[in-house]
Amino acid sequence: MPKPLNVGMIGYGFMGRAHSNAYAQVNHFFDLEYRPVLKAACARSADKAKAFADQWGYESVETDWRKLVARKDIDLIDICVPNNLHAEIAAAAAQNGKMILCEKPLAMNSAEGKKMVEAVEKAKVPNMVWYNYRRVPAVTFAKKLIDEGRLGKVFHYRAKFLQDWTISADLPQGGTALWRLDVAAAGSGVTGDLLAHCIDTALWLNGPIANVSAMTETFVKERKHNLTGKVEKVGIDDACTFMGRFTNGSLALFESTRYARGHKALYTFEINGEHASIFWDLHDLHRLQYFDHRDQGVVRGWRTVHVTDGDHPYMGKWWVPGLQIGYEASFVHQVADFLDGVAARKPAQPTFRDAYRTQLVLDAILDSAKGQKWVKVKEA
Amino acid sequence: MPKPLNVGMIGYGFMGRAHSNAYAQVNHFFDLEYRPVLKAACARSADKAKAFADQWGYESVETDWRKLVARKDIDLIDICVPNNLHAEIAAAAAQNGKMILCEKPLAMNSAEGKKMVEAVEKAKVPNMVWYNYRRVPAVTFAKKLIDEGRLGKVFHYRAKFLQDWTISADLPQGGTALWRLDVAAAGSGVTGDLLAHCIDTALWLNGPIANVSAMTETFVKERKHNLTGKVEKVGIDDACTFMGRFTNGSLALFESTRYARGHKALYTFEINGEHASIFWDLHDLHRLQYFDHRDQGVVRGWRTVHVTDGDHPYMGKWWVPGLQIGYEASFVHQVADFLDGVAARKPAQPTFRDAYRTQLVLDAILDSAKGQKWVKVKEA
Amino acid sequence: MPKPLNVGMIGYGFMGRAHSNAYAQVNHFFDLEYRPVLKAACARSADKAKAFADQWGYESVETDWRKLVARKDIDLIDICVPNNLHAEIAAAAAQNGKMILCEKPLAMNSAEGKKMVEAVEKAKVPNMVWYNYRRVPAVTFAKKLIDEGRLGKVFHYRAKFLQDWTISADLPQGGTALWRLDVAAAGSGVTGDLLAHCIDTALWLNGPIANVSAMTETFVKERKHNLTGKVEKVGIDDACTFMGRFTNGSLALFESTRYARGHKALYTFEINGEHASIFWDLHDLHRLQYFDHRDQGVVRGWRTVHVTDGDHPYMGKWWVPGLQIGYEASFVHQVADFLDGVAARKPAQPTFRDAYRTQLVLDAILDSAKGQKWVKVKEA
Amino acid sequence: MPKPLNVGMIGYGFMGRAHSNAYAQVNHFFDLEYRPVLKAACARSADKAKAFADQWGYESVETDWRKLVARKDIDLIDICVPNNLHAEIAAAAAQNGKMILCEKPLAMNSAEGKKMVEAVEKAKVPNMVWYNYRRVPAVTFAKKLIDEGRLGKVFHYRAKFLQDWTISADLPQGGTALWRLDVAAAGSGVTGDLLAHCIDTALWLNGPIANVSAMTETFVKERKHNLTGKVEKVGIDDACTFMGRFTNGSLALFESTRYARGHKALYTFEINGEHASIFWDLHDLHRLQYFDHRDQGVVRGWRTVHVTDGDHPYMGKWWVPGLQIGYEASFVHQVADFLDGVAARKPAQPTFRDAYRTQLVLDAILDSAKGQKWVKVKEA
Repeated sequence: MPKPLNVGMIGYGFMGRAHSNAYAQVNHFFDLEYRPVLKAACARSADKAKAFADQWGYESVETDWRKLVARKDIDLIDICVPNNLHAEIAAAAAQNGKMILCEKPLAMNSAEGKKMVEAVEKAKVPNMVWYNYRRVPAVTFAKKLIDEGRLGKVFHYRAKFLQDWTISADLPQGGTALWRLDVAAAGSGVTGDLLAHCIDTALWLNGPIANVSAMTETFVKERKHNLTGKVEKVGIDDACTFMGRFTNGSLALFESTRYARGHKALYTFEINGEHASIFWDLHDLHRLQYFDHRDQGVVRGWRTVHVTDGDHPYMGKWWVPGLQIGYEASFVHQVADFLDGVAARKPAQPTFRDAYRTQLVLDAILDSAKGQKWVKVKEA
Repeated sequence: MPKPLNVGMIGYGFMGRAHSNAYAQVNHFFDLEYRPVLKAACARSADKAKAFADQWGYESVETDWRKLVARKDIDLIDICVPNNLHAEIAAAAAQNGKMILCEKPLAMNSAEGKKMVEAVEKAKVPNMVWYNYRRVPAVTFAKKLIDEGRLGKVFHYRAKFLQDWTISADLPQGGTALWRLDVAAAGSGVTGDLLAHCIDTALWLNGPIANVSAMTETFVKERKHNLTGKVEKVGIDDACTFMGRFTNGSLALFESTRYARGHKALYTFEINGEHASIFWDLHDLHRLQYFDHRDQGVVRGWRTVHVTDGDHPYMGKWWVPGLQIGYEASFVHQVADFLDGVAARKPAQPTFRDAYRTQLVLDAILDSAKGQKWVKVKEA
Repeated sequence: MPKPLNVGMIGYGFMGRAHSNAYAQVNHFFDLEYRPVLKAACARSADKAKAFADQWGYESVETDWRKLVARKDIDLIDICVPNNLHAEIAAAAAQNGKMILCEKPLAMNSAEGKKMVEAVEKAKVPNMVWYNYRRVPAVTFAKKLIDEGRLGKVFHYRAKFLQDWTISADLPQGGTALWRLDVAAAGSGVTGDLLAHCIDTALWLNGPIANVSAMTETFVKERKHNLTGKVEKVGIDDACTFMGRFTNGSLALFESTRYARGHKALYTFEINGEHASIFWDLHDLHRLQYFDHRDQGVVRGWRTVHVTDGDHPYMGKWWVPGLQIGYEASFVHQVADFLDGVAARKPAQPTFRDAYRTQLVLDAILDSAKGQKWVKVKEA
Repeated sequence: MPKPLNVGMIGYGFMGRAHSNAYAQVNHFFDLEYRPVLKAACARSADKAKAFADQWGYESVETDWRKLVARKDIDLIDICVPNNLHAEIAAAAAQNGKMILCEKPLAMNSAEGKKMVEAVEKAKVPNMVWYNYRRVPAVTFAKKLIDEGRLGKVFHYRAKFLQDWTISADLPQGGTALWRLDVAAAGSGVTGDLLAHCIDTALWLNGPIANVSAMTETFVKERKHNLTGKVEKVGIDDACTFMGRFTNGSLALFESTRYARGHKALYTFEINGEHASIFWDLHDLHRLQYFDHRDQGVVRGWRTVHVTDGDHPYMGKWWVPGLQIGYEASFVHQVADFLDGVAARKPAQPTFRDAYRTQLVLDAILDSAKGQKWVKVKEA
């Protein structure tokens, strides 16, 4: 029987639910040395903490995260709060020797991210950032195809993350539900929220990005602020696009927006290599499109691989071929890999340091857009 | 806090896992009066029962289902064993006053099914059959569109369920893993296994089927039998096709096979009505294709509805728009509806009686194929 | 320079235009020994014949087809009139030693078709029937893949042809525009109009059909008749479905209807073989879907082959890879092949005899539907 | 009967064929005041000119374009030669009072283009540039939807043109077949060849582009030159990407490359507006994807409009709903519109002046890429 590993969860929103579900499901599908125990849920509001704990089976509640991170019976702190709170909590948790799983993006900016990396590395605690899309089976499978050398020299990497939920000018900013629109809580708009995902995947699949030229736009300039009740300037970017070069010589083209009518969460990437190309799309996350030029000429074509077979990544743990799994499974896989890492005393990626590299690209993007110039990405 | 409802699970295979997962997840996502408690898992092999119980958190194990159905601390019996065992277990469970959830198809044939209906109706116990595809959100949504009258008079209903996993003549039949190929355990081949799903959905969406003309085929005539070790005649149908008429005047066209190379679990249905048509496909289960002739002419087209919005059936309970859920969620939804039914003292469909109607169509199909003639479906 | 071959066209409707376009275009793209010369256009109405001749460049007009088929300066008669006129014209043209290209279906029924075959074979004139879909490059390519043995033993052949243009009960029947709805002119409804295409392709790709069980339906029982001005019984079938067996042991499943809302001309076929499967769709006629089980397991998937490369059938004659051609090109290819046949003194398929085989299947279908029984297809 | 309009064609390559086909087909499908007569074909090689003339039915041949443009019996000069010859021929043709149809891009650069505009405007001759994609019915239909105001305020316009035919480093540059790889003949690489198409469509659909930041890359630095026989530096761009802003406030994101494995001629554009979005793809050119937020919420989805109905642009002239036309039809439509313009004494777009605007964007792109800076597009 797996050994218990006690989780202290800070936050109760969308991500708090997704992570709790992962802790609850992981041992049903994966054979692991550890078993997450939902020990405590923490939120400023005692009522909300209690309701969340009841729904998910957390054994206790806290209303002060400082008390939680100091509790002896907690092994792991999961940070699911707005971006502006990540750094302080992570530092305290590290100081208390807790393992830390932090929501993405790691930090408000790379300077803050650097301190967080230093904190966990100094404390030598296992750490990971929830860039969950790496563990969608089709994406993990893409990584495998690339590592096998199937693409050959890469020429192009393009990614986009398109949403449409903030088009209405009547939507307010700030507060619990809409902190992603409040620059003070989020740090940036789609850059940190959406592009961060695209960049994490890209660095993993295609290596470092060398330089960028970016453009941002805020289509709705003012919105009512939920915290002040007043109409205030919008500080976030509604859209962000950049082009650039990877250090392997391939060209980068990235776009994110919350103003693409008709797309809810359309994260796609396509990689064109000398021999083969791959394409993936979050709206049909169980499929990978694959074109291999080495197929016989007349029957060459894009193959739509239904990534549900037993020999596809993670899928042997679930159902039978042809039956797809959901978005939430990516978190289950990430917990499974993290617990395997704990057992093997090896880091599970992306670590804080990996996520810090994404932060450096984000900084370069925002600098470039502001200065209307090409910017070199700093090395980690 | 929801009240406990104690589950006794018989079986530990694919479906035993899918149902257990549903019991484990349902209260995390749905607010219900009841909470399933995984009380006991039952299998002939004590080791297998123990391993399964450990994986899923069942509190105890049994190796004799007769003892399980007699236990006072069990409220609900879940039957997840081969088809030839359904009737006897269901009868005993009903006699003991247990609620019963039975895997599909209900029975080996309609005569057996009839007795099962009589047993549960006499005992007045809540009962349901696991035709899970009704609760895929896109399918439930299709039902809603039909009930709203959007299709108008229906002309055509076509469905197919295509697989390719038994093409190899080297595959044996029978035993724990391959009982679906053994006519003694399964009753029929694709007819009861795959067409049964298509028919359940069809009766729900389009009403009764009046008559059928069917054709079956067994492509591989002999296979080694796992129980005897000898090459034996294959008694199941590898493929089954039928056409017919619904009582509403629309034409039926159904096909199932395990010899359609390239398809793993391609269950699709399409309904063509006077005003609108709908199409669904299990390989992309989160989408519903919808064509509405009342749209303005020049911009008419098939709409691909990504059934992930908060106002789509069940989806408000999960994540955010654009993020899809998996196959297993259909079971979660079915448990949620069943528990709501228990709370409201109302049956949750499909009941044993509903599933018996499907059984009558299956009988008509097999009769027609055998006799090479049109056969009228008996009324329930 | 190619030698002239003088064409006499009878009819000026949709097919008259499609064939005329083919004659006009063929020498621009194909290097041939012959060149069709648009010598005479024939229609009962002198005005309509004249207008048609002007539009397409026919040198002269006739209003009596008997005069046309007797003209010395005509080498080839193209029959583009309603089905009930095919037999008489073909017999006269054969008697006059003309080559004959006849629109599909060949005849009103197989008895009539048999006489037509006898007429052209006795006269030893080149003859062909316009089952044009054989020459859509993706379909010709499918034939090539099959002939190379890529599919292995075939298990399933399914085809459908779905339209939606006659759903309105206000649509009249009969006359020039709507003769396809008048049983006296058309012989049958969707069976001869749509299923005939599906059957022609199937016989070519998968060999003879041995027996069938069919079902027909006329959804709108009465329509105003354009010739009489009165509401009259509708004699055609609005929908026709059949299942059956090919002589190679594979199962047939065919459907056609004009009541499938949302589909204009959705002719599709799919063939499932032991090793590979193919799928084609007239609404995206430049693509062939191909699944090959012999591909490496993890990257197996349906390939969408964009049939526009230089080494795909006919495509080397057109533009460059990636650029698709239209529906009308299938007729251009058929003329090219016919002219090649004339030069080589070899028949170009489908000949009248080939089309007669389709007629025998149509007869079996209509007999089966009428008698509600399985019917054996007669041998040609 | 339409009046003759005598065409003198210069060039015999891919575009010479596409235009000749358009002249041959246009009066078969469109009712026009004018009828193009294929009067003369011109090429430096007498043999090639003769062969081309024979294939397409040109009445005479010339080997010196100067003689052709001076011929009294020629009304219209069609320029289908490499880009570096456009300007001189156009100037001479204008001076001789000929109508001019010029292949795209108009010129080697905007300075040259400006002179060409001045020449035709001074001579007051009808003129047009063959940006044929405007006349693909689905694209023309997109324009109609935009002009009706269906999109509302536009936020994003993204386009790409992806090919993969120059990946091999063994491919030489220059000469008749490969002049597009020779900077001396082509002026630029994918920028003038592919992006020019994307920009022409964009200016038409979404108005002027204000400024750009671009990046170019030449993946293969040296290739054997067909004219010199020596390995020479490659002067063209293999890939070009740019972002920018339209004057209407929307963001531009464009990409073109010949190194995207798996794509032959994947020209796509997508426009996201406040109310609606549209997407088009040259690989399935008969479809337009359309999403309208004003559709009822639960059945909102991307509609795939099969642009083949009689009330779709140009389609009423062709076949029946459901039947698609090919790439070449876009040229037929362009000739039809040009001839209508001649009859009405109105310019048919894109005129030389329209195409000059595209040239100014191309110049800004190349300047930006060279200087690694944002560049303002000059006004025409």
